[in-house]
Amino acid sequence: MDLYFSPLAWSMATRIALYEAGAEAGYIYANTRTKRLPDGADFFAISPLGMVPVLRTDEGELLTENAAILQYVADRFPKAELVPADGIGRARLQQWLCFIGTELHKAVFIPLLDSKAPAEAKAYAAEKAPARLGYLDKYLTGREFLLDAFSVADAYLYTVLNWSRVTALDLTQWPALKAYLSKLHQRPSIAKAVGEEGALYAEQQARNKAA
Amino acid sequence: MDLYFSPLAWSMATRIALYEAGAEAGYIYANTRTKRLPDGADFFAISPLGMVPVLRTDEGELLTENAAILQYVADRFPKAELVPADGIGRARLQQWLCFIGTELHKAVFIPLLDSKAPAEAKAYAAEKAPARLGYLDKYLTGREFLLDAFSVADAYLYTVLNWSRVTALDLTQWPALKAYLSKLHQRPSIAKAVGEEGALYAEQQARNKAA
Repeated sequence: MDLYFSPLAWSMATRIALYEAGAEAGYIYANTRTKRLPDGADFFAISPLGMVPVLRTDEGELLTENAAILQYVADRFPKAELVPADGIGRARLQQWLCFIGTELHKAVFIPLLDSKAPAEAKAYAAEKAPARLGYLDKYLTGREFLLDAFSVADAYLYTVLNWSRVTALDLTQWPALKAYLSKLHQRPSIAKAVGEEGALYAEQQARNKAA
Repeated sequence: MDLYFSPLAWSMATRIALYEAGAEAGYIYANTRTKRLPDGADFFAISPLGMVPVLRTDEGELLTENAAILQYVADRFPKAELVPADGIGRARLQQWLCFIGTELHKAVFIPLLDSKAPAEAKAYAAEKAPARLGYLDKYLTGREFLLDAFSVADAYLYTVLNWSRVTALDLTQWPALKAYLSKLHQRPSIAKAVGEEGALYAEQQARNKAA
């Protein structure tokens, strides 16, 4: 199994899930600016929109989209218990994956982080943040995880909210969210993923600056 | 089982799935402008962000988010075969649900349809459309459905693309997409849902105009 990733990008959620599962996996750096792989190959041949994550399964299938890849990894390594086993629990997991993907990742964070987004598009995205983050903050008050135990939804939410540091979003107004992130940051799988990808991200930034 | 819906909104995908399954269900009109239910109750008590769809299960659980609700309905009525049974097929279904929800629904259609979105946010969303719709068009060339048979992903994609009629997006440049939509439009579950919700939508517009 190979994960095509970009440092600290949304693909980090899958790295966290793979670390949680103790899975053997390859990690292939995809340059999402040049759309090239380390061997010079065209990343568009792997990912139709040139986006990470992409997972190549052991059977050679290429799978895209966070919600699909995270559930695939969780189902492939059931002992890690990264998704609830029962029906309504699985539905709740899908609810959170969809909420994080649509309401936070795409509606708020992509415009805020995109250097090419016009100021008005950023302002439009920023306006949506308080209702969504306020709802999450209220929900997470008194909870350690989104569901009863750590799941791939937490790996995804951590990865998305981790980017708030480089936006104008000030999480201190949502104390339960801040506490949730701080606690997850100590979790071994997350600390390892953030440490490794943080170093790769710094190298990438240095290379971009030099170029 | 009750579906909280707004006419022609994204909740129509679930209505289509319920019609496909021949399911007994209640349909509760949620006014997403006034955030009120028909009995005057506050819709925020049902939906934390005031958005449709929400599904109330027979056990009284409230479920939000399209990808979660559509899979819940499909799993609840397995005879309708609205999702693939095997592992990788289910992963592909989740891939499409996530793609439709994040790349089309949230990234493109919401800003294009939102009367409060600034022109620059609409332009930013419109710029994303050709790559995404072009990819879909290429994929759908020679195919009738997103997967081997009709699935809840088709119900969702139809519902989202149906809105292109009231945007500046001209689907004629993507002939496979247009053919896909025309064919689905003839499908009994979809024709019934569009007919009923279209009538309710017209009534709603007339009421809003009168108010």
